[in-house]
Formats: sequence, structure tokens, C-alpha cells
Amino acid sequence: MNDLNRLCQAVQPLHDDQLRVRVGQRLDRLTKPLGALGRIESLALRLACMLGTESPQLREPQMLVCAADHGLAAQGVSAYPVEVTHQMVLNMLAGGAAVSVLARQQQLALTVVDCGVRGPLPEQPGLLRRWVPGLEAGTQDSSQGPAMSEAQALQALQQGAAVLQSLPGNVLLLGEMGIGNTSAAALLMARLTGLPLLHCVGAGTGLGSVGLARKQAVLAQVLARHAAVQGPLPLLAALGGLEIATLAGAVLQAASERRVVLVDGFITTAAVAVAEALAPGVLAACVFAHASAENGHARWLTVLQAKPLLDLGLRLGEGSGAALAWPLLPAACALLNEMASFESAGVSDRVG
Amino acid sequence: MNDLNRLCQAVQPLHDDQLRVRVGQRLDRLTKPLGALGRIESLALRLACMLGTESPQLREPQMLVCAADHGLAAQGVSAYPVEVTHQMVLNMLAGGAAVSVLARQQQLALTVVDCGVRGPLPEQPGLLRRWVPGLEAGTQDSSQGPAMSEAQALQALQQGAAVLQSLPGNVLLLGEMGIGNTSAAALLMARLTGLPLLHCVGAGTGLGSVGLARKQAVLAQVLARHAAVQGPLPLLAALGGLEIATLAGAVLQAASERRVVLVDGFITTAAVAVAEALAPGVLAACVFAHASAENGHARWLTVLQAKPLLDLGLRLGEGSGAALAWPLLPAACALLNEMASFESAGVSDRVG
Repeated sequence: MNDLNRLCQAVQPLHDDQLRVRVGQRLDRLTKPLGALGRIESLALRLACMLGTESPQLREPQMLVCAADHGLAAQGVSAYPVEVTHQMVLNMLAGGAAVSVLARQQQLALTVVDCGVRGPLPEQPGLLRRWVPGLEAGTQDSSQGPAMSEAQALQALQQGAAVLQSLPGNVLLLGEMGIGNTSAAALLMARLTGLPLLHCVGAGTGLGSVGLARKQAVLAQVLARHAAVQGPLPLLAALGGLEIATLAGAVLQAASERRVVLVDGFITTAAVAVAEALAPGVLAACVFAHASAENGHARWLTVLQAKPLLDLGLRLGEGSGAALAWPLLPAACALLNEMASFESAGVSDRVG
Repeated sequence: MNDLNRLCQAVQPLHDDQLRVRVGQRLDRLTKPLGALGRIESLALRLACMLGTESPQLREPQMLVCAADHGLAAQGVSAYPVEVTHQMVLNMLAGGAAVSVLARQQQLALTVVDCGVRGPLPEQPGLLRRWVPGLEAGTQDSSQGPAMSEAQALQALQQGAAVLQSLPGNVLLLGEMGIGNTSAAALLMARLTGLPLLHCVGAGTGLGSVGLARKQAVLAQVLARHAAVQGPLPLLAALGGLEIATLAGAVLQAASERRVVLVDGFITTAAVAVAEALAPGVLAACVFAHASAENGHARWLTVLQAKPLLDLGLRLGEGSGAALAWPLLPAACALLNEMASFESAGVSDRVG
């Protein structure tokens, strides 16, 4: 546990009120009515404070997609068969998945991490293997026992932190793949927020009403089985999954390095919520890309006091929403850094 | 009037149900759950239908900023003095305005049109002069009489169409500058939608409650003075302004050429609404970038049955919201064109 403590204690709160005031004053002197760029101004202010500079520059953005399988998928909680995790990882690496197309188009470096995907994945550029011994083909079935041991969850967290450390740049975009992972995320949401399970469970990849009812019943049983479990690491271990744990570790490391974290949808929000529970202060490093159409996501964002940038009815995951919102971040930096002020441009200020 | 009729009749409805079905089928076979890319899928479908192809490509996007002054500004309807129009055009051309920064960052060609800006603007690259004789320094004061004659409004429309014709590419982004132009837009909104004036008037560049009350009172008088005016061209002439008329002409021409039009905020929505009133069908060519924080804009979008892409509390104009939303359009095209299908990627489809 000392390793986890070290990881968590490295997350320091962002306290630089002087910087915040200076950036706010600069925004107010740019050639536009006060506040006229709305949420883009608050985004620019947050990015400046995250990066600790009046002139924030985003460098070498990294899209990190963590993939893993879920033992719970055997209980029929997804509209798609388990082999789709493996197939979609291959599709991502071949360039045909949504996140691959968007990463290519927007010049985001894409790294896919096999955190425990069932089926062989040949070594290739852009793919990292970060298995946890004993869970090479995914987590155990959380309806039958814990998805992982605490030691296994800790190892996944540490591997995520190490992966992030090995990547360049100062922005991390979160992505994921794993059939069954809306179930793990919903279970974590229910326990971390205290909200009723029905407020946390959604249709995932597209369950109909019968499938959704089945998913809700299965997840209620899982919650009941692990009702005595307390604390973020034990909950992560009990409920899964490996990709969520690995991402949570990457988020902890990113926050400790003051990188900007751009969060995608429901699953990556689970990773961030776990990281925040482990090390309060992580949320200060996070920008939420969008409100997913997955039931529960908007509610979870409200609990986290997060205001997402986009609301486009996305529910794909993979990091696709983060990639779609990405251009707003360099745009916000450019406006802060490059717009003229009323003084420098010789523009008259408002009357009275 | 024959010239206007010719311009309007060139706007043809987009009727290609076969193309719509084919693109919809392709979207449904891409490696993602059905509809999981939400509004990005409907955007891709619309872009394909607008451009008349299953593989839409956006070429050489043009940001067209039309600027003009308003005689009505003499009535104290803006928080900023009239000379700001002239100063901001110079700022745009020098690269310090929000739209300049965003256009540069996102590689949008920026053209600024002086449609009647008070004060000298030296000739320079990126600036076009498209004056209407007699209105070189802006419109007449619509509280005292018509802002323009119908012949003058028609000339501005035609000049806008000609400017668009001279620009390359297949996407037009709309921008504007003009102290007092939220007043002209609010007046057009009230007459074109039939909504109460109070639902159409907002704080513009940032009026306080006293200033807003004054603006509302002035605009009520203007509406009363021109209550007998009927029809889109006479209303445009009576209420102004030159930048709105020039933009409306550019929109008519773009729609007739099946270019995509990306609409910015309140003022450019006025231009589109005038164009749609002149030639029903124009809206089929338009994507609305964002819902502005300006009172009235969201309501106007509802009347136009338009769903904006962003909702970020922007109220700057200039085209800044269109530039911020722009990356979503090539992203939607890339997803449609480049994602693998279930068949091509060997990914299993949903169970049952």
C-alpha cells in the first residue's frame, strides 16, 4: 500500500490564486465584451491554472485507450458478444475504429493498452501489453466473487501510472474498450455516489428493455454480494475492471505531473471517480469532454460538479467524445495567448 | 427584382432520398453500436446530402466576415461606441480578434468585407470593399426612416452573392461585425417570427438593465414606425443592416451552389432567416454552430427547427462560434468515410 500512498500523495491541489487573478484580468482585457466567449474563457482559465502558466501550450496530446474483458460479461449484460473487445482492439490498431479515425485526423498520438483482453493480440506498434498475472484474459466474474484481488487492482493502477510516465506531452485523453464495462462503471457509480442503482445503469452498447432489465437484476445481485466492501481500492477490486484500474492509475500520475486530463464518457468517468476517491484533488486536473447519452453519465457529472463541453448524444466510448471535444482546448489556449487587448489594438472600451 | 428572383430560384430543394438511405445504411454498418455517435451521425448524413455524395469532403472552408455600421446606433442601443466597428475590422485584419486567431489556428481562409463601415480602411489583403452608394458609412437610422431603400438592400444582397461566387471551396462560415447589429437582428426576428419583441431583444455586447430597457423602448418605436412594411426584402431594407443583407446574399448563392453554410450566432441567424424567407429551402444548406447566450437566439433556432452543435454560452459573434464548431464537420466526414464496417473489420454484430 505504500506504493499507492506515494502515487496518491503526489497529487497536489492547484493553489495559485495570483495566477488565477492574472489570467482572469488578461481575459477581461482581450478585444471582446466581458465574458463573451463564455465557457471557452473558463476553459482557458482552467488550462492556464492546470499548467501553471499565463500562456498555456498543449503539447503532444496522448490518446490512451485501455482495453480489457470482464468476467461479468458471461451473465449476459451486454448487447454484444465478448469477442468484440478483441476484435475492436484489432480494428483500432488497423485504423478503422472511430477513435482511430479521429486520432489520425486530429493528430493525436494513439496508444492502445491490452490490460487483459481475451484472445491473442500480436505485438505491433501502438499496442502495449500490461497484464496482471492471473487475469490475462480479463477479470473474474464479479457476480461470483471479487473481480480482482486488491493486490491485482493495485498492480493495474501502478501499471497505468507507469504507462503514463512513459508517454510524452502534457495532455492525456482517456479512452477505453471492454464488453461489459458499462456494468463495472455503473456498479462503481452506485457505490461511489450512493445513488440508487437504477440511476446508474444504462443500455450500454444498446440493450433493449428486456436486456436492460436483466442487466439491472444482475447488477443488483453483484452489489448485494459486495455490500460489505468499503473504500475505493477494495471497491475497484470487487467490481472491476482492469481497464478502469489502469486508466485510474494513469489519471493519478497525470494529475501528479500537472498534465491536463480530457475525460471521455461513462467508463472513463468511472476511472476518474476512482482516482478522485483515492486522491482528492484529481478532478482539478480534469476537463470533461461531453455528457454521454448513457443513462447515469449526466447525473454522475453533476455529482462531480463537472460541466462537460459537448452534449451531442454520444455513447460510443473508445475516447471518441474526448477526441471530438479536443480542438476546443488548443482553441481556448490560442484565444488567451494570441488575442489583442483593447490597449494593444487601440479599440475603445465600453461606454460607462 | 428579376435579379433577386433569379438568385432565389437557384436555391433548389435537396431531394435525394436514395442517397439518404444509402448513407444511413452505411452509418449503420460502421463498427459502433447503432446510433452511438449521436448528433455526429446526423451531421455526417446531412453533409453527405448537402454535397450530394456518399463520401463528403469539405474543401477550402471560407470564413466570410461582413462588417457595417448602423444609423440606429446613434440612439444608444449598444454598450460600445460606434467607432468600435472600424477598430475591430482593423483588429481582425491585424490578426488580434477572436475570429482571426481561430481562423489562423484552424486554417480557415478569412475574408473581411467592408459593407459600409464608418471610417477609412486602407486597402489590404483579406479586405474587400463592397459599398452601396449613399451608404458608405452605414445604414440610415431606422428610428427615423428606412435603414435602406429596397434597391440598396437588393444591391447588398447581390454583392454578397458575387463575393461568395468569387471564393473557392464548398463550405462557407458566416461572421459579422457591426455596433448596433443585435438591434437590427432583433427587429428582423420580431417581424419574421411574429414573436413578441421582448423575446427577441438581448443585452448584445453587454448592456445593463437600464441600457437594455432603453434598447427595448427604441426598438419598439422602430417596429411601430415600420409596422406597415411587409415581405422579406422590404423588411430587410426598413430594419437593416448592410452586413446582414450582404451575408444573406452570400447564403443564397452558397445554397444555390450546394455549398455547406456554417452559421454563427444571432446576427448571422438573421441573415439566414432573411435568405430563407426570400428562398425557402436555404435552411437545408445550413448547419447551426451554436446556441448563443444572446436572448432570443435559442428561441429563434427553435422556430427554425435548427439544432445547434455547441452550447457554450458564447455571445461574441464575429464568426467565433462557427470557427469553434468547425472541427466537428470534417470529423463527421472522416468518420463516415474512413471507419471500418462490421464486415470489413471482421467484428461480430450484436447478439439477437
